[in-house]
Amino acid sequence: MDYRRRIEEMVSGIEEMGVDGAIILGPENIHYLTGAPFVRGSYGKVFFVSRGGEASLIVTDLDYQEVSDVVKSAEIVKTDFMEKPLERLRKIAKGSPRLGFEDGVISAALKEKLALEFRLEPLRGLVEKMRERKDSEEIAAVEKAQSINDRALEKAVGNMREGMSEFEIAAELEYYLRKEGGESFAFETIVASGPRGVYPHGMPSARKPSKGDAVVIDFGAKCGGYCSDMTRTIFFGNPSSDAKNAYEAVREAQEKAIHAVSDGVSGKEIDAAARAVLDRGGIGKYFVHGLGHGVGIEIHEAPILGPSNEIPLVPGNVITIEPGVYLPGKFGIRIEDLLVVEQGGMRDLTKYTRDLIVV
Amino acid sequence: MDYRRRIEEMVSGIEEMGVDGAIILGPENIHYLTGAPFVRGSYGKVFFVSRGGEASLIVTDLDYQEVSDVVKSAEIVKTDFMEKPLERLRKIAKGSPRLGFEDGVISAALKEKLALEFRLEPLRGLVEKMRERKDSEEIAAVEKAQSINDRALEKAVGNMREGMSEFEIAAELEYYLRKEGGESFAFETIVASGPRGVYPHGMPSARKPSKGDAVVIDFGAKCGGYCSDMTRTIFFGNPSSDAKNAYEAVREAQEKAIHAVSDGVSGKEIDAAARAVLDRGGIGKYFVHGLGHGVGIEIHEAPILGPSNEIPLVPGNVITIEPGVYLPGKFGIRIEDLLVVEQGGMRDLTKYTRDLIVV
Repeated sequence: MDYRRRIEEMVSGIEEMGVDGAIILGPENIHYLTGAPFVRGSYGKVFFVSRGGEASLIVTDLDYQEVSDVVKSAEIVKTDFMEKPLERLRKIAKGSPRLGFEDGVISAALKEKLALEFRLEPLRGLVEKMRERKDSEEIAAVEKAQSINDRALEKAVGNMREGMSEFEIAAELEYYLRKEGGESFAFETIVASGPRGVYPHGMPSARKPSKGDAVVIDFGAKCGGYCSDMTRTIFFGNPSSDAKNAYEAVREAQEKAIHAVSDGVSGKEIDAAARAVLDRGGIGKYFVHGLGHGVGIEIHEAPILGPSNEIPLVPGNVITIEPGVYLPGKFGIRIEDLLVVEQGGMRDLTKYTRDLIVV
Repeated sequence: MDYRRRIEEMVSGIEEMGVDGAIILGPENIHYLTGAPFVRGSYGKVFFVSRGGEASLIVTDLDYQEVSDVVKSAEIVKTDFMEKPLERLRKIAKGSPRLGFEDGVISAALKEKLALEFRLEPLRGLVEKMRERKDSEEIAAVEKAQSINDRALEKAVGNMREGMSEFEIAAELEYYLRKEGGESFAFETIVASGPRGVYPHGMPSARKPSKGDAVVIDFGAKCGGYCSDMTRTIFFGNPSSDAKNAYEAVREAQEKAIHAVSDGVSGKEIDAAARAVLDRGGIGKYFVHGLGHGVGIEIHEAPILGPSNEIPLVPGNVITIEPGVYLPGKFGIRIEDLLVVEQGGMRDLTKYTRDLIVV
């Protein structure tokens, strides 16, 4: 990945803001700018970029070995694990009193603390905006992660049998996600069957799908730090005609939306394409979420696709298209592909069939 | 779980602060106070508690069904997915101009936004402090999650063979974590072999452990929303005498530290007990992190056990004891148990042997 170019772009942003430098604490942003590995949710590294282009990544000796084996575009500053990286920042950024900071990432309490020593200016999503438009190496990483999904689901479906619990379905799927090379999971796997399918975020449970149940399976792997994302709804035994009709409507809604994706088109327009199909089928009111979201180093990032998102897509956006319907007491159905927006169209990174599958 | 009591304790805190109510946005804090399910990292619900004890959980219709099936201790307020929960909060909290907020959880940008409408006072970890001292139901959930770890590692070790990659080792282990009833994983599984073992947070890779390699395996399941946490270092073939000596020193350090755990003892004292053993063995300088941390709804929470933590432990703290040494270019070794602090001692929730295992 071209970290040097990303840091240069960051420096341009710093110049434009008229500050002396920027502090980056969000692990995903640090990963984007330097390649430093991270465990989700684990803070501790401090990245400092000065207006002059000096880049320092401050880490404790816990992370030092791994970071210095990987990161080549910034100076690695090692602190003893008893000296906090923020204390070291004070020394390094002494000559830079006005600093940009990630106002959408760091907590209000931490901001108060930093404000005692620096004059802080919000970066207002400077790095996150860079991350929205993926370059070819990033797209390749997402595509690899999504191809792991394709192969893992194929194998897991081959092992699915009546009598298995949601736990066991998750076990099969995640087993193959790993075997196919997933470095970790992009998010907590969702397996929700029958009436539990109306929980769009339903974690697996001990429930065993009954005959004819729809099973919503939403999952992703990580590759090179990038996420994939995919949902299929698999039937355990032949579905009722209601469920079958709903499945076909969701499938058509998804296909219409996918074909509406292109640079220059807004999330609102694409969402509307899906919603129109479901409205026509009389189940539009059960589509209770937006159509999709951006995917990259994080599983949920910009751009968002929904009824209130009017910003046009640009080439390099990586987005999900995932209409779903949730009929209380009955079933949930969702189908989700991962796409990259291109000039004049899109490329679907998902190869797994969206035909109705009965096991 | 006794959510009503927790909300009452919250109300006492609100009275003490002299504010009109509190807004809670952190999904882990909302889960603690109401039982509302959540996907890690996913915000969107808003919990409001007034000084008078009214409790409202505002959710979009995406989450409504699942939340209303589960949450009984608060009024569930459903918003259409196009109306943001924070907009609805404005109406509900109209008569409460002074509100406590989670200054360590919400971002600086969101705080700015809320401050336009409310007079905000930092809660300074009010809920997080309640969460530090687990009650018997919480301890039972953690214990169940840790027993899943015990059984899953037992089965996974039985399948470990020379020639397997770190990916495959993770695949085996996670497969059994699910089969044994893990609702999800407490964190991203670490599998780091041979020289990669010096990365304390090493994600699995395609590397196949060589003969004699130490393989650090750090993993956890979730049960009822509570995390478990456990590390074992397994040898693929007989270890070198250096590695064997280091293993025995880490094991002794861990045992000494475990026996030092009791209410009234500080993290600093327990950390020192482990560090003394490793210093005596001449490898103390390779122990580059603190000894342990609290575990509960989050995998890392208070209290922290390390050289600078002087607050005495209290009964109900659930903590890890995890000394480790990382010899650059050679190997890493870590052993980690999960314990509950009791009056006059502790109970180790981990049953898996810490004897040196060679596969």
